[in-house]
Amino acid sequence: MLEPLTQIGRDAATGGYVRDAWSPADMELREWFAGEAARRGLDLREDRNGNLWAWWGDPSRRPGVVTGSHLDSVRQGGAYDGPLGVVSAFAALDLLRERGGVPASPIGVVCFTDEEGARFGVPCMGSRLLTGAIRPERALALTDDDGDTLADVLARAGRRPESIGRDDETLAGVGAFVELHVEQGRGLADHGRPVGVAAAIWPHGRWRFDFRGRADHAGTTRLADRDDPMLPFARMVLAARAAAERRGVVATVGKVRVSPGNANAVPGHVAAWLDARGAAEDDVRALVAELAEGHEVSEESWTPVVGFDPALRDRLARVAGGGTPAPVLPTGAGHDAGILAAAGVPVGMLFVRNPTGVSHSPEEHAEQADCEAGVVALADVLEDLCR
Amino acid sequence: MLEPLTQIGRDAATGGYVRDAWSPADMELREWFAGEAARRGLDLREDRNGNLWAWWGDPSRRPGVVTGSHLDSVRQGGAYDGPLGVVSAFAALDLLRERGGVPASPIGVVCFTDEEGARFGVPCMGSRLLTGAIRPERALALTDDDGDTLADVLARAGRRPESIGRDDETLAGVGAFVELHVEQGRGLADHGRPVGVAAAIWPHGRWRFDFRGRADHAGTTRLADRDDPMLPFARMVLAARAAAERRGVVATVGKVRVSPGNANAVPGHVAAWLDARGAAEDDVRALVAELAEGHEVSEESWTPVVGFDPALRDRLARVAGGGTPAPVLPTGAGHDAGILAAAGVPVGMLFVRNPTGVSHSPEEHAEQADCEAGVVALADVLEDLCR
Repeated sequence: MLEPLTQIGRDAATGGYVRDAWSPADMELREWFAGEAARRGLDLREDRNGNLWAWWGDPSRRPGVVTGSHLDSVRQGGAYDGPLGVVSAFAALDLLRERGGVPASPIGVVCFTDEEGARFGVPCMGSRLLTGAIRPERALALTDDDGDTLADVLARAGRRPESIGRDDETLAGVGAFVELHVEQGRGLADHGRPVGVAAAIWPHGRWRFDFRGRADHAGTTRLADRDDPMLPFARMVLAARAAAERRGVVATVGKVRVSPGNANAVPGHVAAWLDARGAAEDDVRALVAELAEGHEVSEESWTPVVGFDPALRDRLARVAGGGTPAPVLPTGAGHDAGILAAAGVPVGMLFVRNPTGVSHSPEEHAEQADCEAGVVALADVLEDLCR
Repeated sequence: MLEPLTQIGRDAATGGYVRDAWSPADMELREWFAGEAARRGLDLREDRNGNLWAWWGDPSRRPGVVTGSHLDSVRQGGAYDGPLGVVSAFAALDLLRERGGVPASPIGVVCFTDEEGARFGVPCMGSRLLTGAIRPERALALTDDDGDTLADVLARAGRRPESIGRDDETLAGVGAFVELHVEQGRGLADHGRPVGVAAAIWPHGRWRFDFRGRADHAGTTRLADRDDPMLPFARMVLAARAAAERRGVVATVGKVRVSPGNANAVPGHVAAWLDARGAAEDDVRALVAELAEGHEVSEESWTPVVGFDPALRDRLARVAGGGTPAPVLPTGAGHDAGILAAAGVPVGMLFVRNPTGVSHSPEEHAEQADCEAGVVALADVLEDLCR
C-alpha cells in the first residue's frame, strides 16, 4: 500500500526515512497528496498552518468526518508511522465509493504538518497551531540544526509566516476525527488481532537539559581542575533510567549536542533532551522534578493525558472489530489526534498490528493483510459516523 | 602579536576560533603565512603534504634550524595554540636580522597542516605524513562530518592527493626543530617564570567506541524491551573518569555522535571518542583496556612517549632562561614536535606562560610581555643552534 512513497526521503545506506517538515522530501510528499486528491476529484485546501485537507463534500455547509495522519518522519524512521494513516484514508474513501451512495456528511482526508517535530523540536506542530495549543510567535522563533527559524523556512517554502495560528474556520469543518496509525507497541500482537482502538494517550513531554562547564585541553588539564559537563550528563542518563524503572514510566535520552565537540578537549556544554511518558501524569512530573534538581532544565513540550471520547471509542471498537469488539489499548505515543481531542473535537484512533512493536526505526513493519484489514475497518467507521 | 589573525575563523558569538584544515579560514591563514614570507624575502615552499616552509638560506646545501608551529585550531579554540609559535618564529627571525650577521645555517619557519585533527580525527596530520607515521591510503580515506574524504578535500583545494606521504627530501633539510607554544597547563605560572622548556610529551591516544543498540519509539517501547546504547555510553563516561583518577592519568570524552538523534526515539547507535594520556604508557594502556572490555573499540591514533633530546633540552633551558636555567616541564599535549622527535629529528620545545592553564577554549590567554619574552628566548635559541 505504501509503494508510491517508498523512495521519498529514504536513506539508501540504512533503509530509514528522513522526512523533515518542509524539506525537499516533505515537499515531494505534499505533491503526492495533492495528486491523490486531484485523481479522486476531491477539493484540496492548504490551511494557514500548512496542513493539507482533501474534501469529498463541502465542510462549510455541514461539519465533516475527517481521517488521515501525517507524512513527515522522525529521522531514520520507518515507512508506516504517519503515511499508513494517510494512504489508508484515501483507500477507505475509495472503498466507500465502491460500496456506492453519497455520505450524508462530507468526508475529509487530512495530512497534518510536522507531526514528529524532528526539525524544530516541537511535535504535532500543524495540529497545535490549528487549535491554538502553541503561540505562533513561539513556533516561528524555533530553530532547526542549521539555525534557520520556522519563519525563515515557511517563507522560503512560499508560505506566509505571519498568517499561522489558531484557525477556527478550518476547525469548524471537523465534526469528528479518526486517525489510523500503525501500533507502536505489541498490544495487538499479544491479542492476536489485526485492528484495535485507542483508549487514551499517555501524558508526555520533552525537556531540555543544559549542562555547562568549561572547555579545556584534554591532555594538560588535571582532573581536579576540570569542570566537565559530560559527567553530570552521563549521571542524568543513568538516573533517568533508574527513576523510570522505579516509577513505572518510560524515560529516554535520544538527542544530545556536545560543544565544541573536539575529541581532544573537555567539552564546555552538553545539551540533552529527555522524553518522559507514563500512564499517570503525577509519576511523569515527579520523575522530571527528580532529575531536574540542581540542573538547568526547560520544558519544550507537555501534553496532558488524552482520554478519547468513551462513546466514540466504544462505537469504533464495535464497528471496527468485524463481529467481536476490537481491543481497546492505551498508548505512550503522541498524535495529532490527541491535540484535536484536547481542543474538544470528538476523536478516535484505530491501530494496525505491529508484529514486533518496533517503531521510529527502519525495522518498523506491518503485514499487508493487516493494513488491508485496517482500511476496511476505517471505511466501516467512516460510514457509521457519516450516518 | 596575534593582531593580524584576530578575525580569521573567529565565531563572533563565542569568541572561539574554528579553523579546520583546508577550510576557508585555513586558506586565509595560509595566505597570511605566504605574505609574511614574501615581506621578508624568504623562500616559500609548500611540501607534498601541505606543510608550508619559509626559508632564510637554502636547506638543500646544509640542514637548517627550523621553528614554527601550526595555524589550524580545535573547534571553538583559543587564539594562541598554534599561531603563537608561527608568529613568534617570524618575530624571532626579525630580531636575529636586527642583531645583524648572517647565520651559518639556514633558518626555516614552518606551518604544519592540520595539527589538531579537528576535521578528520587524526592530529598532527602534516607531520605524520611528512615522517611516514601514517599511511597515505589511510589518511586519504578519512572523512569529515560532511562525509568528504581527505582526498576529496585536497583535490578541491587544488592539491594532489596521490603525492602525499613520507618526504625524505624535505625532512633532510631539518637539522633541528624548535617549537614555541603557549603552555597548556599552569607549570610556568606556578614557577613564576615566563618561558620554559619541554621535557617530554606524555604518551597519548584517541579511541573510538561504538555502542550499538536498536532505534525504537520513546513512548511505546517498554524499558525491558529496549536495547538503548545511551546507557552503556553513559556508564563508559563515568567509568573513564573513575579509572583515570585511580590510575593517575587523564581521560576525556569530548566528542559524541548519537544516531538517529531524535528526541522522541531510543537511539540506535552512539559513537564516542575517548582521549587518554598519562606519564606512563602502561597506565594509559591499562585504562583503555579496562574501558574497552566488552565493547567495540578502535584505536584512531597512538603516540608513544616522546622524550626530547636531553642535550638539546638542557642547552635550550640554559639559553632560553636569560641567566637562570628555564624550568623543564612535561606536557600532556601532543605536538608536531613530538612526531618529528619520534622520527629522529633533534627537537626541543619552548613554552610561554599561561596564567590560568586553560587551553582549547576561547579563554586561552598569554600576557603580551610573556609572548615577547618568548620571542627573545626563541631568537637566542636559534642563534645558539646556528653556530
